[in-house]
Amino acid sequence: MKIINNKTEAIEELKRISTRTNSENNNKINKIVEEILQEVKISGDNAVEKYTKKFDGFDPNPMQVNADQIKNAWDEIDNNLKRSLEEAHKRIQKFHEKEIPQSFTIKGEYGDIVQRRWKPVKNAGIYIPGGRAAYPSTVLMNAIPAKVAGVAEIIMVSPGNKEGEINKTVLAAAHLSGINKVFRIGGAQAIGALAFGTNQINKVDVISGPGNIYVTTAKKLIYGSTGIDSLAGPSEILIIADETAQSTHIASDLLAQAEHDPLASSILLTTSKNQAKEVLEELYKKIEDHPRKEICMQSINNWGSIVICENSEQCVELSNNFAPEHLEILTVDPKKILAGIENAGAIFLGKWTPEAVGDYLAGPNHTLPTSGNSRFSGSLGVETFMKNSSIIEFNEESLKVNSLDIINLAKSEGLHSHANSVQIRFED
Amino acid sequence: MKIINNKTEAIEELKRISTRTNSENNNKINKIVEEILQEVKISGDNAVEKYTKKFDGFDPNPMQVNADQIKNAWDEIDNNLKRSLEEAHKRIQKFHEKEIPQSFTIKGEYGDIVQRRWKPVKNAGIYIPGGRAAYPSTVLMNAIPAKVAGVAEIIMVSPGNKEGEINKTVLAAAHLSGINKVFRIGGAQAIGALAFGTNQINKVDVISGPGNIYVTTAKKLIYGSTGIDSLAGPSEILIIADETAQSTHIASDLLAQAEHDPLASSILLTTSKNQAKEVLEELYKKIEDHPRKEICMQSINNWGSIVICENSEQCVELSNNFAPEHLEILTVDPKKILAGIENAGAIFLGKWTPEAVGDYLAGPNHTLPTSGNSRFSGSLGVETFMKNSSIIEFNEESLKVNSLDIINLAKSEGLHSHANSVQIRFED
Repeated sequence: MKIINNKTEAIEELKRISTRTNSENNNKINKIVEEILQEVKISGDNAVEKYTKKFDGFDPNPMQVNADQIKNAWDEIDNNLKRSLEEAHKRIQKFHEKEIPQSFTIKGEYGDIVQRRWKPVKNAGIYIPGGRAAYPSTVLMNAIPAKVAGVAEIIMVSPGNKEGEINKTVLAAAHLSGINKVFRIGGAQAIGALAFGTNQINKVDVISGPGNIYVTTAKKLIYGSTGIDSLAGPSEILIIADETAQSTHIASDLLAQAEHDPLASSILLTTSKNQAKEVLEELYKKIEDHPRKEICMQSINNWGSIVICENSEQCVELSNNFAPEHLEILTVDPKKILAGIENAGAIFLGKWTPEAVGDYLAGPNHTLPTSGNSRFSGSLGVETFMKNSSIIEFNEESLKVNSLDIINLAKSEGLHSHANSVQIRFED
Repeated sequence: MKIINNKTEAIEELKRISTRTNSENNNKINKIVEEILQEVKISGDNAVEKYTKKFDGFDPNPMQVNADQIKNAWDEIDNNLKRSLEEAHKRIQKFHEKEIPQSFTIKGEYGDIVQRRWKPVKNAGIYIPGGRAAYPSTVLMNAIPAKVAGVAEIIMVSPGNKEGEINKTVLAAAHLSGINKVFRIGGAQAIGALAFGTNQINKVDVISGPGNIYVTTAKKLIYGSTGIDSLAGPSEILIIADETAQSTHIASDLLAQAEHDPLASSILLTTSKNQAKEVLEELYKKIEDHPRKEICMQSINNWGSIVICENSEQCVELSNNFAPEHLEILTVDPKKILAGIENAGAIFLGKWTPEAVGDYLAGPNHTLPTSGNSRFSGSLGVETFMKNSSIIEFNEESLKVNSLDIINLAKSEGLHSHANSVQIRFED
């Protein structure tokens, strides 16, 4: 990783990072995933079984995890971890309860009524990755919004390990979140099972949760007939700092992103030359002793970046342009910087708010838009699991009063029956 | 069109209708659209020009419609139509103002602050179809929510006719909605121009608006790097009626859907055998004199359906299963039926609320989920043009109080630097 101190070069480099998953393999992956989905659609559980054996190396039958096993997982975890999960659950739930979108009604002067009514979807599937990225926090961040929305049936899928077992803490988090339907399957075949339904797994209305490129591709392909949360890429942090921030904090926070994934990206924009150098040194020092040294090294070397900016305005401009998933502001007056921030999934203000606070328990969801998507989208929320209907009720008078306008507009569009459907009401 | 009076057969038939656009040509269309998008991405305006000449038959340069032309279009339309557009604009704006999602802040007991902040996207592109489906109401239904959201730059694209001209009333509606950037291009190439940006057209954050299968496919392909409203299929109405409804009203309302498009679908679920027969007769009688006879005939014959239900519960069950875009309830007590409705884009209650009321001016958006998607999504709304950011600010005390929980959770996930990023704050 090198230090950049030229704006044009910085823009180029941030663009390279932002588009790092626009892989040329997309067509190949698309084709593989399409085939899996098609087979699950036609052959159901048999196809899920076939691909689980092939990719995960175990026979998934029966797919559903026994209810006792979920309960036992909770009973068996350490008491301190139990309390920490409960505290996180409490704070996340409290925040998400405020997110519930509001139904409303407007009554017109002639008694006509128009409404927007929000309801939960009937059921939802949540995808929890296995392997390196088996995170109990992911369970909370997907299950809680669905529960708060009022979803009656939540189905969790998560790939088993070679022995067909799901991570214990993940199961414990499911228990805490009130989920009792867990299936030990993963990959594109699990997304297919949730989208189309099989004998063992109910078809769901919405699928949320992160996954690898196969899972994300499957979500993209079924989007349009099943609701999804978003298409998440690898994680990113961008830190805006000035000379008042401590280089050791910055290095630690950057590594907290890098340790997730070789494709994760950690970016520092700073107005201090000295700090840039210090952070760079500190980073490689910390990586030396890191339990995930290899992952950190790949992430930092390939997708890490330190940029020296001329002033804080330039930091803000580059940050808005990148539209980061996570943005930490470590400056003398973070709120002053915040005022200029347009695009960011989550914003962490000041020394006492490392990103980990939000990853686990501050309250807001940690599922956030990546790859520049915070330009137009935000966090997973309660509304991910709800839908609205418009309700319209006119009476004779209000239809009469508005009839000419409706007929004028219908005629301007050449829609004969639209006009007729109003006229005919007054012809009886 | 035949009358069905068997539940199993009705379910089959409604499924056939709901999946009518799951065409086997999808792969072919995908490939064509991918190629167009790729070319627009690389060659910009040149590619847009090439495809406009090829598909729309005119040279689009200059692409942007002169500001005077937009203003003149408004000045030149009939005064009655002007007043009707203004009335519709007023009602739609009033309804959408209530949709603005609410930012909120929660202050914790140790002074920590968590926020959800909503902001408009920077700019948006709205796609307005040309040809048979050139509707000024579509302009209002896309432009008003973007304006209410506070979007600074709205770019409208709409394909010109063979002479390169956009429908006058469409331009007038753009003027009324405060849109002054209009480009006379359409198809997948216009979606590409908005998604990637060209010399003449700015890259936008969100693209909304209906279109043919090429436009919709382009929207699906760029979804994930640009925001979109939804993937709309052809329009549908489902009417639940009992013997108290008038057959002539029902027939007129069914045709108001059919006249849009040969692929539009019109469905009646009724508890009255007599009515079923009367509506069938009335339909074909009305089609005989219809100015869009051919379209109506194709739509009704291929995708129309009349089902006799045993009771109102069965109507509700079949309707929820179909999850219609538009639902009219023409029964003795519409609110009683409404109580059981789970899935519907817009619901029209009683004799005095034909769908046309909502299509034009009731207030709610007429862009609604089709093909069963009202199971999990709702109307285009102000939130389509907004995004949220989470803002988190802890202080020394609140981080201290929560530090053990964060560290416990980080360690349970094997994320060393997540834990370290908290610990290090207290080591100075």
